[in-house]
Amino acid sequence: MSAIRYELIKTCAQTGARLGRVHTPHGTIDTPTFMPVGTQASVKGMSPEELKSLNAQIILSNTYHLFLRPGHELVREAGGLHKFMNWDRAILTDSGGFQVFSLAEMRKIREEGVEFRSHLNGDKLFLSPEVATEVQNALGSDIMMAFDECPPYPAEYEYVKQSTERTTRWAERCLKAHARPHDQGLFAIVQGGMHKDLRRQSALDLTSLDFPGYAMGGLSVGEPKHLMYEMLEETVPLLPSGKPRYLMGVGSPDALIEGSIRGIDMFDCVLPTRIARNGTAMTSQGRLVVKNAKYTSDFGPLDPECSCYACRNYSRAYIRHLIRADEMFGLRLTSIHNLHFLVHLMEQVREAIREDRLRDFRDEFFEKYGMAHNESGF
Amino acid sequence: MSAIRYELIKTCAQTGARLGRVHTPHGTIDTPTFMPVGTQASVKGMSPEELKSLNAQIILSNTYHLFLRPGHELVREAGGLHKFMNWDRAILTDSGGFQVFSLAEMRKIREEGVEFRSHLNGDKLFLSPEVATEVQNALGSDIMMAFDECPPYPAEYEYVKQSTERTTRWAERCLKAHARPHDQGLFAIVQGGMHKDLRRQSALDLTSLDFPGYAMGGLSVGEPKHLMYEMLEETVPLLPSGKPRYLMGVGSPDALIEGSIRGIDMFDCVLPTRIARNGTAMTSQGRLVVKNAKYTSDFGPLDPECSCYACRNYSRAYIRHLIRADEMFGLRLTSIHNLHFLVHLMEQVREAIREDRLRDFRDEFFEKYGMAHNESGF
Ligand SMILES: [Zn+2]
Ligand SMILES: [Zn+2]
Repeated sequence: MSAIRYELIKTCAQTGARLGRVHTPHGTIDTPTFMPVGTQASVKGMSPEELKSLNAQIILSNTYHLFLRPGHELVREAGGLHKFMNWDRAILTDSGGFQVFSLAEMRKIREEGVEFRSHLNGDKLFLSPEVATEVQNALGSDIMMAFDECPPYPAEYEYVKQSTERTTRWAERCLKAHARPHDQGLFAIVQGGMHKDLRRQSALDLTSLDFPGYAMGGLSVGEPKHLMYEMLEETVPLLPSGKPRYLMGVGSPDALIEGSIRGIDMFDCVLPTRIARNGTAMTSQGRLVVKNAKYTSDFGPLDPECSCYACRNYSRAYIRHLIRADEMFGLRLTSIHNLHFLVHLMEQVREAIREDRLRDFRDEFFEKYGMAHNESGF
Repeated sequence: MSAIRYELIKTCAQTGARLGRVHTPHGTIDTPTFMPVGTQASVKGMSPEELKSLNAQIILSNTYHLFLRPGHELVREAGGLHKFMNWDRAILTDSGGFQVFSLAEMRKIREEGVEFRSHLNGDKLFLSPEVATEVQNALGSDIMMAFDECPPYPAEYEYVKQSTERTTRWAERCLKAHARPHDQGLFAIVQGGMHKDLRRQSALDLTSLDFPGYAMGGLSVGEPKHLMYEMLEETVPLLPSGKPRYLMGVGSPDALIEGSIRGIDMFDCVLPTRIARNGTAMTSQGRLVVKNAKYTSDFGPLDPECSCYACRNYSRAYIRHLIRADEMFGLRLTSIHNLHFLVHLMEQVREAIREDRLRDFRDEFFEKYGMAHNESGF
């Protein structure tokens, strides 16, 4: 039996969006879901208890970063990533592919794998399907990702074709190298750039290999959003309905809703914690830059409709003061709020699917959110 | 009736140290006590709930910093500092004197007050007994400090004499300016540099003015510790036994114990959170620099004898990783531990007073702590 099992509860009559559950060795995840990102074995500024209190059921961590520091052997020695970072709910690790291919100048791609230089100290390192799998086996994540090549946007058809075919060959090698299929589920990553036929080919080739889940990679890399949605529409219907589907690196509220409507079950993004660090909050009325002078003596919460710890206890004026004064606690509060906002948004999305009204929910959400959209736009 | 009332429970038969309680409008403080410092209306990296969970009963905040940013009028508008920062236990604010006199080049002292330039933006500002009192009245702290001049170490006798006499005149002006004696207690600050007769004079002059509490200022400014202890021995016996005594800016474990033995009830220091930020922990065996390579795969807690949140849940290896990776959560964990260490140390001191064995406790503590003292020495 696979370590990861997807249970489809129902589809939204209005949109076809899926309400479901992903069962993992570390608990069940209600989907569609948003996964906070803990790049270096910590979700920036947050404790595990805070993540739980905002009802996060799964977090993501980055193989590339942990491979470099502290090293996967150390994490293995610590008893795995869950124990190392004191998080007993589910963890998904990416494969390191995306980060390595973002290094551009510093890496060399061969069929065997990728040679690259550490962004920390310039050390020459090597990642391949086998190494990325071994690293993730050492980390012990519930969901592992196959090592893929993520082509840039835009990219030539011929390049993307070869890269996509290689990603399939690499996925097969990951499957073979996977040492813990009983307690870790390995997901494949559909590539194909912005070329519909390559996307379809990638989906068909990978689904023939029977992975316990599938991701859409190489999206949200700079292309216009309508292109991303077209690629989803082209590919998702080809994926088996009994397996979870994960759209990588997407976390803007509109894309979470649009992605769910197109059959996506899982999302992740660093956006909520990244913008928190310069004092930007996601709110039901759009983006709010709390550092702005107009909030100097605003004693209301970041978002009047929010019930998070930050909004229940602290004012915009206080959070603005903390962020201007470089106080860590300001980033904590904004991070808590932003993560709560997205996790709570997905709860609303699930509720709307249950009630067969996700399209209505989307329209209502956008209208409200769009009111301040000119000022904002995440 | 004064806003602040001291209750002496007993003195230690072995040392004369005092076990007591300070009653404030925001709760009772068991003394001797250590006060975490929240310079800019936040104890670095900590939430109010975390401070409560380690049993902090009072925190300190800095008038100088809040005067500059966000400004005391904003805090007043917010309903006072307690409400602004969501802390419903006691708060002590200093007078700004120490910070202003640390600006050296940038300030000009007159009888009327001190002209100085903001370290943030160079703005010309003015603090005087009246202004410092008004600012603290706006902040609404439970315990306010009189605006004093803190001479540097070393300093000429004649200079210290004039400065100390001015501090007394300023204390009198603070008393007059104080607008909320019913719910804020104003403490005077004994000065006198390292000159015993000036210390005595300062203590006698100030106690004649009947403040609800007295602080020892101008100590821990670079002088050898034995000199600080001599000044305490010279002055503390002159202070009324029915009022609390506060030793400003002292937070090393040895000085907390030695200060208690010399009749001090309250201490504050930025040390625990400051050293936390470069990955240094106070432990029962001395200082531990968790960033050091020897802790790379050390899966034990920061301090095996500690019961704090960090020590219960995280290893040295994990905290070392977080701090090397510049992860905020590492600083949180080390700060929680260090503050817990000092707050817990004072609980042990109180217990030892109750049992008339504070000298024995000191000797035991030092022996253990001294074992690693060569490596450390805070
Ligand atoms: Zn909120
Ligand atoms: Zn501890």
